[in-house]
Amino acid sequence: MALLGAGVIGGGWAARFLLSGWDVRLHDPDPDAGRKVAAVVENARRAWRSLTLAPLPAEGTLTIAGSLEEAVAGACFVQESAPEREQLKQELLARAEVAAPPDAVFASSTSGLRPSRLQAEMARPERLVVGHPFNPVYLLPLVEVCGGERTAPESCRRAAAVYRSVGMAPLLLRREIDGFVADRLMEAMWREALWMVADDVATASEIDDAIRLGPGLRWSFMGVFLTYRIAGGEAGMRHFLAQFGPALQWPWTRLTDVPELTDELIGRIVEQSDEQASGRSPEELERERDDRLVAVLQALRGAQAGAGAAIRDWERRLLADAAPNGRPVAAGQLLEHRAAVLPEWVDYNGHAHESRYLQVFGDATDALLARLGIDEQYLAGGGSYYTVESHLTHRREARAGDRLLVTTQLLGVDERRLHVFHSLWREPERDLLATAEQMLLHVDTQAGRAARAGDGPLTAARELADLHAGLEWPEAAGRAIHLDG
Amino acid sequence: MALLGAGVIGGGWAARFLLSGWDVRLHDPDPDAGRKVAAVVENARRAWRSLTLAPLPAEGTLTIAGSLEEAVAGACFVQESAPEREQLKQELLARAEVAAPPDAVFASSTSGLRPSRLQAEMARPERLVVGHPFNPVYLLPLVEVCGGERTAPESCRRAAAVYRSVGMAPLLLRREIDGFVADRLMEAMWREALWMVADDVATASEIDDAIRLGPGLRWSFMGVFLTYRIAGGEAGMRHFLAQFGPALQWPWTRLTDVPELTDELIGRIVEQSDEQASGRSPEELERERDDRLVAVLQALRGAQAGAGAAIRDWERRLLADAAPNGRPVAAGQLLEHRAAVLPEWVDYNGHAHESRYLQVFGDATDALLARLGIDEQYLAGGGSYYTVESHLTHRREARAGDRLLVTTQLLGVDERRLHVFHSLWREPERDLLATAEQMLLHVDTQAGRAARAGDGPLTAARELADLHAGLEWPEAAGRAIHLDG
Repeated sequence: MALLGAGVIGGGWAARFLLSGWDVRLHDPDPDAGRKVAAVVENARRAWRSLTLAPLPAEGTLTIAGSLEEAVAGACFVQESAPEREQLKQELLARAEVAAPPDAVFASSTSGLRPSRLQAEMARPERLVVGHPFNPVYLLPLVEVCGGERTAPESCRRAAAVYRSVGMAPLLLRREIDGFVADRLMEAMWREALWMVADDVATASEIDDAIRLGPGLRWSFMGVFLTYRIAGGEAGMRHFLAQFGPALQWPWTRLTDVPELTDELIGRIVEQSDEQASGRSPEELERERDDRLVAVLQALRGAQAGAGAAIRDWERRLLADAAPNGRPVAAGQLLEHRAAVLPEWVDYNGHAHESRYLQVFGDATDALLARLGIDEQYLAGGGSYYTVESHLTHRREARAGDRLLVTTQLLGVDERRLHVFHSLWREPERDLLATAEQMLLHVDTQAGRAARAGDGPLTAARELADLHAGLEWPEAAGRAIHLDG
Repeated sequence: MALLGAGVIGGGWAARFLLSGWDVRLHDPDPDAGRKVAAVVENARRAWRSLTLAPLPAEGTLTIAGSLEEAVAGACFVQESAPEREQLKQELLARAEVAAPPDAVFASSTSGLRPSRLQAEMARPERLVVGHPFNPVYLLPLVEVCGGERTAPESCRRAAAVYRSVGMAPLLLRREIDGFVADRLMEAMWREALWMVADDVATASEIDDAIRLGPGLRWSFMGVFLTYRIAGGEAGMRHFLAQFGPALQWPWTRLTDVPELTDELIGRIVEQSDEQASGRSPEELERERDDRLVAVLQALRGAQAGAGAAIRDWERRLLADAAPNGRPVAAGQLLEHRAAVLPEWVDYNGHAHESRYLQVFGDATDALLARLGIDEQYLAGGGSYYTVESHLTHRREARAGDRLLVTTQLLGVDERRLHVFHSLWREPERDLLATAEQMLLHVDTQAGRAARAGDGPLTAARELADLHAGLEWPEAAGRAIHLDG
């Protein structure tokens, strides 16, 4: 794919596509574009690593192209993120169209210009869509997809598919309007915020607190309509509109006019903004923002709605794409599972908390079960293996960033039980960090009691146990804990 | 304290104050108020339990008063949450003032009426402030505190102190304006959202997605000013204003007018809202909202800014108020540690992931070590206990929300090692869920090798082991894992 423009938005796109395994050719007139984009990618990589345990694909390659034509040659998808000047964008798109393959789709990152205008100079305007992302592009799922008068619906669908492939949640707009949907909402709030500073009602910092300590917490998972529906109580939305509708007519807000950005007002905002930032550099603020976004996205993942659903779907695809699970095992060959130690796993001793070792062992057990055919369908049928006993030994400490390998040996099988032995190694040195011996019991999850495993998993487990029968019995298996040992 | 009004807001106040240990006297003309408030408190209790592991204080007592006068008699703080009618509120406050003690502070929950108007009929208007909270009152930290022309600054300070004591983050407004700060921002966005439905640009569900998948995620921890400062890149706020300021003049939004709520528009919004709710009852939506708020608040707690800082400060106060750690143990008495199963601990089997049991056992071990004198100073001196072996057995599954008790027995001590046995119970039933036998090794953390423990911890450990010497040896201790066992 090709990127035109390497500002904040273009750099964010580069990070998202590269980290998703796409090769990216980028053009920007700024000779320093390569260095700037590399910095954005590095920051984004840090955030992605802490966002998911799913195996990320091998990163794509970034090529800085000397010209627009060189960038788009051979690209099936071109994302334009040039400055917000209509004529400039029109010219870039018209040039790109000539140099790109005939079936390429063109997307503009514009936050306000109409696609009907942007496609005006194109020979084949049906290929142009708006694909409007939000900062930081590599973390926020939203991208507004909007076609112009002459855009083919197929182009919107293809752009949406591309965005989904890099973990985004495209919102297909039903009508072309200036500013699209999200920016109109932001703009409305921003105007009101500017009035409040202009009228000295509140400072930048106070206004931001009014958002993030209150309604902003709700908006991370629930928009205005659902929030107000709940506020209507039992009687719902109609009641809410009847109760609070009339307030819309009150002379509350200053929205009937636009504040003039005088030098005095600009100076005041800049001063209040400096105070609010209290010496933090843009990079520090960006990292803070990204860390908090990752934390919020992870929190919502469990809820499986909104951004949480987008993250979960993305992880499922990453897992499915990685899918090394079905690879056959040779006799005497251990199963392998990989992980990495995240910064938040580290406790006051400076290394991973003991429970995180068991988390990784649990993941390795899940990988074993998946190989035996315990999938969503099997679980839905009411069968599952539960861990009933675990014996961990610790040899060395795992530190933040360590790459981990778990090797798994199936020690024994009966109709209800699996006896498993894991070893946890630091890569690439192959230092042994810990071991876990586990007994798993097959249960009927509806009845809540032990039950014979299904024929499929049982056969697969016996085959694997046979393949592992020739392996040495692990030194740490079958041992008890004794003080006088 | 006294509450006037038991609607959505009044019920939320009742929950927050009761759960914080305040006795509450409430009056509402609705004869069903007691039942409604009890339901809100029950829901709030569920959320608070999953929000923190810190020990919550004993709940206060709710008294439903037969009259306003009976409710406010003897109350040092009166929170009024009657319907949004100026005259009604003026009358209630004037009556309450007569019946309450002379030093009582009166706060109105109004979201739009000016305190200067509300205090108009009061004999001692200096005692009246606005304390405007947000839904759900028991979870969102924000409360806008605003005085009127005749309010004493001391009343604002006293109200803010009361709100802080129940875990809120009061925002003291510098000027009295209709709608205060947060509602003005919400109102601006809401007007724009209504226009988009009226113009058929987007549906309720699409607008909500445009918020929660994009900018709304940021607003949970960062308001508009700091967000835009980052968008300005290296050049900061001045650059952002120069770049995007002119766009304010574009005819983007419909904010220069107010949409008329015709029957047709109301019908359309109600229909789209029903579709969005897809059959979920108000109670279900409330629970979803609360669960996600709890998850987001917990996610931000680590960041220690915005709502995260409010939650952290609240927990510190709860812990300081509880502080039972140093309590001496009697002979034969097990140590106790309490925890609760958080929603995010639950895996695909519907119960807590096995690693979370070890996390709780690890916390119980930390509590044991703290009791032996392993504090920050000891750790800074280069000594610590590391877990070298753990043997877990699982009996029953822990589910989200379960209250857990860990009892800890010190089985043995030598110069370098502690032999520990934990049992994990579900409260209040005292169902045994799991056990953990652990061997801890004292290490010289600088040298990275085993070393004799310091005299203080060693003496304390031997004393505790003596106190536990008479206890029965746990049935699950000293066992090994065997398939043919």
